[in-house]
Amino acid sequence: MPHLHAIRRTALRELLRDAELDALLVTDLLNIRYLTGFTGSNAALLVHAGSETETVFCTDGRYIAQAEAELPDLERVIQRPSADALVGRASQRRDRFARTGFESQHVSVEQHDAFAGLAEGVELVRAPGFVERLRLVKDSDEIAALRSACTAADKALADLIQYGGLRAGRTELEVARELEGRMLDHGSAGVSFESIVAAGANSAIPHHRPTGAVLTTGDLVKLDFGATVNGYHSDMTRTVVLGEPAPWQRDLYDLVHRAQAAGCDAVRPGVAVADVDRAARGVIEDAGHGEHFIHGLGHGVGLQVHEAPSLATTGAGTLTAGMAVTVEPGVYLAGRGGVRIEDTLVVRDGRPEILTLSTKELVVV
Amino acid sequence: MPHLHAIRRTALRELLRDAELDALLVTDLLNIRYLTGFTGSNAALLVHAGSETETVFCTDGRYIAQAEAELPDLERVIQRPSADALVGRASQRRDRFARTGFESQHVSVEQHDAFAGLAEGVELVRAPGFVERLRLVKDSDEIAALRSACTAADKALADLIQYGGLRAGRTELEVARELEGRMLDHGSAGVSFESIVAAGANSAIPHHRPTGAVLTTGDLVKLDFGATVNGYHSDMTRTVVLGEPAPWQRDLYDLVHRAQAAGCDAVRPGVAVADVDRAARGVIEDAGHGEHFIHGLGHGVGLQVHEAPSLATTGAGTLTAGMAVTVEPGVYLAGRGGVRIEDTLVVRDGRPEILTLSTKELVVV
Repeated sequence: MPHLHAIRRTALRELLRDAELDALLVTDLLNIRYLTGFTGSNAALLVHAGSETETVFCTDGRYIAQAEAELPDLERVIQRPSADALVGRASQRRDRFARTGFESQHVSVEQHDAFAGLAEGVELVRAPGFVERLRLVKDSDEIAALRSACTAADKALADLIQYGGLRAGRTELEVARELEGRMLDHGSAGVSFESIVAAGANSAIPHHRPTGAVLTTGDLVKLDFGATVNGYHSDMTRTVVLGEPAPWQRDLYDLVHRAQAAGCDAVRPGVAVADVDRAARGVIEDAGHGEHFIHGLGHGVGLQVHEAPSLATTGAGTLTAGMAVTVEPGVYLAGRGGVRIEDTLVVRDGRPEILTLSTKELVVV
Repeated sequence: MPHLHAIRRTALRELLRDAELDALLVTDLLNIRYLTGFTGSNAALLVHAGSETETVFCTDGRYIAQAEAELPDLERVIQRPSADALVGRASQRRDRFARTGFESQHVSVEQHDAFAGLAEGVELVRAPGFVERLRLVKDSDEIAALRSACTAADKALADLIQYGGLRAGRTELEVARELEGRMLDHGSAGVSFESIVAAGANSAIPHHRPTGAVLTTGDLVKLDFGATVNGYHSDMTRTVVLGEPAPWQRDLYDLVHRAQAAGCDAVRPGVAVADVDRAARGVIEDAGHGEHFIHGLGHGVGLQVHEAPSLATTGAGTLTAGMAVTVEPGVYLAGRGGVRIEDTLVVRDGRPEILTLSTKELVVV
């Protein structure tokens, strides 16, 4: 899709010109993927603020054929280390690259030194977050990929339950592996992050890693998992109960369910991210469980499973239509169990579009 | 295994004292895992050069229970951002942390600025690669994990072949998925890196990503894959042929096989890494295929699938007993096919210990 990436580079150029930069040296691989479609493990990209023809991509010998296929429309240099090569290139054409930005939130102190040694005649300017700013608001291709990833996760969970994969006697690890396999069956290219399957008291550990612990009737089972499609991640949590829920489990579930709904309702353009967190957190605090909700409400999701914006009490900024975020309140009662419910959704004018469509009613298996 | 990690911290302290540092702020998560066993996704560690009791670990609320379980013997602070918190801590006790190193090859230019703003009374000293230096030479626990990972990969490949998983008519993606599943069956915690399954002309692409391309009789099929156990990676490549090999395929295979054996033979303590590369490359150059071997010979392997040392023409330094490295020459004939053979091995006094034990004779399936 060269056209798509060219549009993104054009948008970046506008930001660069606003900042009076002649160019940006992009070294973060996800930012490079966003701007070019390149999916290899080593690359650098020098985007000229004025012209596509002066924009140049660099990778190493392993990726010659792949780079040719993935970005036929860009000049390609084959050299290693790639970022150093492009700093040298800017220096050779210093009249056109006099003020070149670099991704100072990614470039290490040592790497910056190496750049400085190669940048004769070029002023290297700190330019953190330019591409990330573009990535905050997803375009239609990105939302399509997010939707496909969420669908793969939804279908995997439905199959897991329908075919009896969630039952007493299985281990957390067995369930995690089946869930991951079923996501691949439904088009996921891989696992978005280490799946969480947490049964019984383990469900009270927010980021529990699945173990050989055996699922038992009466357990809350928390499942937090994601698929990836074209590099985009889904992120969803559901908590089910094995057998008839105890009253405390039902109460806990209802509370988190209400908090999650309040959080989703608050997701609208122009709303401060801290207020979204507040909307859900308030429900939990009112029920006296504030101290048992020990993490932020959610986060952006895209090429990274965790990216900006952060929906947290300390988060800054407001939502914009086209952002993709999670809403995932949880209440964790140490030694007993916990409930978390999480969706991935897209901020829209009016109500948000929820991409993860598995039911949020309490599922009893 | 607190004891194990305490030993590693003691070794680090010695390096710090040699460098006249009072402490090291460790922010790289793999380095933190190496020094503490912590496996969460957010942490920082401030190792005092003089004393274990002044060493402090920091993570966020999601990992309270996990940190307690994984590093009961260290002081733990729960705060976010964790690295900033520990810089503040050093500043509070500036008499004991006057010269504190930071991992300048990992810390970004922006993050360093934030540290500097919090480090009143503390001199932040660039200290790249201290923990990596320790990680170069594996201890017995690390080698045991590497061995288990290599065994999982060996068994997966044996099963794949024995149960007919490698056959004409299947796609590269199907084979990759079966191989990955079989590694999990044999104790792998996950996939070490994106598996390469490359059939026919695709085998000439060094880092080909599996596609829907169908395996066909007469194809060379290159399989490059790895397992992970306790965070340690295996890395192995085998190239097989579907049906009776053509003479050019057999010749190509024999050449790479000889080069790989020459590379393995050269792996001994005290040998320059560039000379190991040379030993294998020379065999390929002598056969007139130097230009078709377009990458380095190998790399270190451990908590990262690619880590120091780099066995390449431009590599610096010599081998030491206890290093774990790959030896992976390849010859790639564009449009026809390629062969790569790769082992993971441990440098030992005398001959190396090869951890990947799948046969290197040409396998015809």
